[in-house]
Amino acid sequence: MRHDHITSAKQLSRGDIERVLEHASDIADDPSAYADRHEEALLGLLFFEPSTRTKMSFAAAIKRLGGDVVDMGPVDASSVKKGESLADTVRVVEGYADALVLRHPSEGSAQMASEFVTVPLINAGDGAGQHPTQTLLDMYTIRENAGLDDLTIGIMGDLKYGRTVHSLAHALTNFDTRQHFISPETLKLPRNVRFDLHESGSTVKEHTKPGGILPSLDVLYVTRIQKERFPDESEYRAVAGEYQIDASTLTRADDDLTVMHPLPRVDEIAHDVDNTGHAAYFQQAHNGVPVRMALLDLVLGGEP
Amino acid sequence: MRHDHITSAKQLSRGDIERVLEHASDIADDPSAYADRHEEALLGLLFFEPSTRTKMSFAAAIKRLGGDVVDMGPVDASSVKKGESLADTVRVVEGYADALVLRHPSEGSAQMASEFVTVPLINAGDGAGQHPTQTLLDMYTIRENAGLDDLTIGIMGDLKYGRTVHSLAHALTNFDTRQHFISPETLKLPRNVRFDLHESGSTVKEHTKPGGILPSLDVLYVTRIQKERFPDESEYRAVAGEYQIDASTLTRADDDLTVMHPLPRVDEIAHDVDNTGHAAYFQQAHNGVPVRMALLDLVLGGEP
Amino acid sequence: MRHDHITSAKQLSRGDIERVLEHASDIADDPSAYADRHEEALLGLLFFEPSTRTKMSFAAAIKRLGGDVVDMGPVDASSVKKGESLADTVRVVEGYADALVLRHPSEGSAQMASEFVTVPLINAGDGAGQHPTQTLLDMYTIRENAGLDDLTIGIMGDLKYGRTVHSLAHALTNFDTRQHFISPETLKLPRNVRFDLHESGSTVKEHTKPGGILPSLDVLYVTRIQKERFPDESEYRAVAGEYQIDASTLTRADDDLTVMHPLPRVDEIAHDVDNTGHAAYFQQAHNGVPVRMALLDLVLGGEP
Repeated sequence: MRHDHITSAKQLSRGDIERVLEHASDIADDPSAYADRHEEALLGLLFFEPSTRTKMSFAAAIKRLGGDVVDMGPVDASSVKKGESLADTVRVVEGYADALVLRHPSEGSAQMASEFVTVPLINAGDGAGQHPTQTLLDMYTIRENAGLDDLTIGIMGDLKYGRTVHSLAHALTNFDTRQHFISPETLKLPRNVRFDLHESGSTVKEHTKPGGILPSLDVLYVTRIQKERFPDESEYRAVAGEYQIDASTLTRADDDLTVMHPLPRVDEIAHDVDNTGHAAYFQQAHNGVPVRMALLDLVLGGEP
Repeated sequence: MRHDHITSAKQLSRGDIERVLEHASDIADDPSAYADRHEEALLGLLFFEPSTRTKMSFAAAIKRLGGDVVDMGPVDASSVKKGESLADTVRVVEGYADALVLRHPSEGSAQMASEFVTVPLINAGDGAGQHPTQTLLDMYTIRENAGLDDLTIGIMGDLKYGRTVHSLAHALTNFDTRQHFISPETLKLPRNVRFDLHESGSTVKEHTKPGGILPSLDVLYVTRIQKERFPDESEYRAVAGEYQIDASTLTRADDDLTVMHPLPRVDEIAHDVDNTGHAAYFQQAHNGVPVRMALLDLVLGGEP
Repeated sequence: MRHDHITSAKQLSRGDIERVLEHASDIADDPSAYADRHEEALLGLLFFEPSTRTKMSFAAAIKRLGGDVVDMGPVDASSVKKGESLADTVRVVEGYADALVLRHPSEGSAQMASEFVTVPLINAGDGAGQHPTQTLLDMYTIRENAGLDDLTIGIMGDLKYGRTVHSLAHALTNFDTRQHFISPETLKLPRNVRFDLHESGSTVKEHTKPGGILPSLDVLYVTRIQKERFPDESEYRAVAGEYQIDASTLTRADDDLTVMHPLPRVDEIAHDVDNTGHAAYFQQAHNGVPVRMALLDLVLGGEP
């Protein structure tokens, strides 16, 4: 992986994923052992869209490795306003840093940008496209809580527009998993994603309610159903309620069920779930640090 | 104090205050001795409201201790926009940092947030509520210039709305001080604050003009009278002038009088005061660094 | 230069310029040798106007020297909103840092601000005024590509309003250069700048088209012609095209011609120039790091 661009979860083989997760696990066990590992490294942060957790956890990751960031700052406070192309911006900024992290609203922008630079570029979300480090931290969280083999996972909520969900589903096909997709009819998995999953030989089932499948799940991955997807609010309310999880819903689940969410949540997981043993979503967010440390260490050349 | 949340100046005993100020004084004497003290520490900055000096001096403080920050950045560039609760935000961000600094417009928010996290959380201002590190740097400045015992202090300006003033007045009751409050009738100290001060056994007097009491003061603490507090601008002008200080006003003061101000000032202290020996307001702002270094060192576990 | 303010390129003698460029060259040859040089240094960043490359390259520079930044952040998120004067802001912030970098929209602001502080203050652009570190990195790029003596340079585009161009032209008079200015009649060099250049004894010629002089140039420095300078867009289009450079234009140039641009560019240099040996504008932007490292090292006292 040394010096590779990381633009899509799809580029990562099962071996790549295992290498990152294994390394993240080593780092999480003894983070101080890595505190001086990249003391001269500067990570360029180019966030053309708002972000709290992704940006902060990339910053924490490089700093936990002894390095530092050079941050473009919010877009409205930068010369992007002056009409510079993204290709020019990344070619300038690669001179200030040893690796770049890019978030941009346009699908395909990270791949395009990576073709103009020689330092490693990591995609931190390109619109409706890819967000590979989110996928890796999701995989890591599943691995730590339920293991990645012989896994039964339910993925619930907005399966039509959620890039997080598509990447995760694709990455899981590298492992022995049974995937259950739970959503309203209007927010089902897109045909092409479903086709890809079937092609890979994965076991894939679709459901419109969580009730029936819940007891058999090892992991339930919840995503938000956005109001904006519905023609009117009453229709949204009618539908959304069925995909909300609370402590009483979970009495029907296995004791070991792990509940995940990419956050931020609004009300799709009730607060009474937070203190149950099922809740893994804050831990999942925190896992962004060791996972991004591992990936940065690999692309910066820390590991053979 | 190790691992404590610092949400209010009121939680600090006389012993706590003395410990922080003593430690700040040691640090100010030899800051380089502390340059490697917290090399692995990351301080999470969560500023939901604008700030120059508080935010910059917290950043300077942790960096002078060898550590670094992870900054959420301005609110409009973060996922707070997506409707995440403050409780969720702090629970996520505590995974990226070893301590948190929170500024938020809602009174009580720091206390509430602190109940959701295990890393130390420091309140950097919660609306009309508390701002304990401002109080500590004010106390430190008084201690360095006039001493905290046998002190006669005048506190002048907007005493009704100023949270800075209420915290300072309360903290001073731990020491042998005579407090004089100088303000227009409409901006007097709120009844409950006055009551608290009397309860503590402090000597408290109120004045509507600074002239009579000025010669007896060791410290004059000036705050801004905001135009917005008055029904029309002419009324504001009539009043505000009486609470403005210039070099000629100070000819009636003791040679050793220390003039303080939490800054930013507009015109309540004239520029001709800046170069007199009375002016301590820039030094007061600078004291934010050693005082915050001391506090961070204590909560991060640097001192027994 | 130790502890000097750097507010204008005009204050720099030939000796000063050579010292900075020489030192930058040493740093560029072996940056790692400087990685621990200013481990305790904090650089205060005060950007009152948007900036990508200047701000990021100052941040990269101090971090490559082992130091760190304390950043005021975007203006709308700071207490500048509360009406504080620039003089007060810099007097506060100098207490948080060992040197300051200031960008401000008002011409003369850096000079004024420097009179209020004792730590070194570097002007990173004051409106239509000065931007001395841009001049230094331009000089460095010329020196590395074509040498600073016996140089024939063409400076093209908006010569009326471009502060970059005026500073560069002035600085070049310290060396043995022939300067050619190429612009539409309405955007010619201002009379006073032309007068200064003649006074210095430099060889200065003006042209309205690049064609005739192009073959004799060692360096062509292109700047943007802004639409806003013209009464209507058709007039702009008629003029702008003649000052645009593409690969075919450059077939008439010397093989060793170096093409520079302060960036961001819009369309005054076509993308087909990027991969020719002439293009030095990205390298020019990257040179901001070693040049600013050199300057910071000198003002912070790293060199005798």
